[in-house]
Amino acid sequence: MPTQIAVVGASAPSADALSQAEAVGRILARAGATLVCGGLGGIMEAAAKGAHTEGGWTVGLLPGSLRIDANPFIRCAIPTGLGHFRNFLVVQASDAVIAFPGRYGTLSEIAMALTLEKPVIGLATWDIEGVVRAETPEEAVRLALQAAPD
Amino acid sequence: MPTQIAVVGASAPSADALSQAEAVGRILARAGATLVCGGLGGIMEAAAKGAHTEGGWTVGLLPGSLRIDANPFIRCAIPTGLGHFRNFLVVQASDAVIAFPGRYGTLSEIAMALTLEKPVIGLATWDIEGVVRAETPEEAVRLALQAAPD
Amino acid sequence: MPTQIAVVGASAPSADALSQAEAVGRILARAGATLVCGGLGGIMEAAAKGAHTEGGWTVGLLPGSLRIDANPFIRCAIPTGLGHFRNFLVVQASDAVIAFPGRYGTLSEIAMALTLEKPVIGLATWDIEGVVRAETPEEAVRLALQAAPD
Amino acid sequence: MPTQIAVVGASAPSADALSQAEAVGRILARAGATLVCGGLGGIMEAAAKGAHTEGGWTVGLLPGSLRIDANPFIRCAIPTGLGHFRNFLVVQASDAVIAFPGRYGTLSEIAMALTLEKPVIGLATWDIEGVVRAETPEEAVRLALQAAPD
Repeated sequence: MPTQIAVVGASAPSADALSQAEAVGRILARAGATLVCGGLGGIMEAAAKGAHTEGGWTVGLLPGSLRIDANPFIRCAIPTGLGHFRNFLVVQASDAVIAFPGRYGTLSEIAMALTLEKPVIGLATWDIEGVVRAETPEEAVRLALQAAPD
Repeated sequence: MPTQIAVVGASAPSADALSQAEAVGRILARAGATLVCGGLGGIMEAAAKGAHTEGGWTVGLLPGSLRIDANPFIRCAIPTGLGHFRNFLVVQASDAVIAFPGRYGTLSEIAMALTLEKPVIGLATWDIEGVVRAETPEEAVRLALQAAPD
Repeated sequence: MPTQIAVVGASAPSADALSQAEAVGRILARAGATLVCGGLGGIMEAAAKGAHTEGGWTVGLLPGSLRIDANPFIRCAIPTGLGHFRNFLVVQASDAVIAFPGRYGTLSEIAMALTLEKPVIGLATWDIEGVVRAETPEEAVRLALQAAPD
Repeated sequence: MPTQIAVVGASAPSADALSQAEAVGRILARAGATLVCGGLGGIMEAAAKGAHTEGGWTVGLLPGSLRIDANPFIRCAIPTGLGHFRNFLVVQASDAVIAFPGRYGTLSEIAMALTLEKPVIGLATWDIEGVVRAETPEEAVRLALQAAPD
């Protein structure tokens, strides 16, 4: 079963972060990993776009109850109806997390991942003890796949 | 985005129900629908096997926290860590539900689907007002796809 | 720690059911049990009113995110933000369930209680195998307290 | 309806933090507020003990499915069966959060509170933008009650 990597981050990020998220999605797909995310815009959509472009699998765990809320690059949309609580499921469903800059929702995902003892790789995100810092999309994906349990 | 149809039922069903569930999975896949289920054995596995055989998408929302718990025909495994509460997510993630014989977990999924005003098609399952009865796998899939919102 | 008994049923029930639910609340409170419910109107409010009148504890697990949604007889309001998913928490938080007439939400609570192997006492509710039928509020409370694990 | 204040922090804290948490519980109870917490040991138990000593209300949202897991100072124990996911319910159920030192679980509660735009008062806890710093238990309770919506 393919490794599942969560990509988390802001819904309104910088152009640079968007570009990096798309690269992460592409590299994950080429490595055969499944992308898991919150299914909406910003970092979530950029990463899904990158993965989708390379024929990769994309899973979106949506806060609302309608699949139509998913960005167009989500192949498997799970409308949870759980609001912000769906952040927990994004993390729970993944083997490792790649975190981009974001606000408190992103921080909650980082914290929950560390609570669940899942690896977290950070690309210019919150500076929290336990987050492994990466400098490039390539490095982030490599570290995430290395750290993910078999 | 493909229609998502949940298939719910017992983890230890009769041979006849297993055979019908596998047929439902095959027919759903041929129709281009995504199968959503609880990801474990019995009806869930038979339906996933049928869908997988035809190249269809299969989503498993697992009660535990490990993807490895999924049956081998699940392509997208979501370990929720929510125990029996994941029944709610199976229903929430779907446009319509096809219910096989099962015990109280199946009944909870039927009831939650009706609470959320989602169509429920029953194949020899609990006799609850609001469940539309089907006699064959073909009829069950046809009714589910007709009833699912666009 | 006092026994916690859930009372579930319609938000718009008959006058007779309301009267019985209020009696169940009163009798539970006199027995020192804590009432758990969904915190809104109808059966939930009648039972909470009965318990509150007798100085009993009342817990309301609300579907929304605001405590103010609770009926005025709820002492401990837990706004879950989980929508219908909170039905499962009502059951999970209780040692036994007393079920009044209701629609699919009530059925989902009965089914989830039976899934979790919790005793369910029914007062003219859904006729589901496993539900123990009671004829009066007194009998319902007696059966629920007897069946609740110590 | 009384204000509900969450107290979050480590299950194995320093003696100093324990003493401060007990003081926070006492002061909350004297102010008529209800204490909400995760129901287990450490900061949760110390705060509940303080509140209970003063006759205050204490609510414990437990990760497991048994009320007996609650510390002895919890009056209203809600076994959620949701594991770490219950952290989100502790925050959701409260008008404001007082955060003590803790590890990632505490950080997840702080982050989720800020995501939900709830006030967070910190006593030597994670240094996160948006957390209002207090120096003493008295100040923490005063700031929390001031910041809580009416």
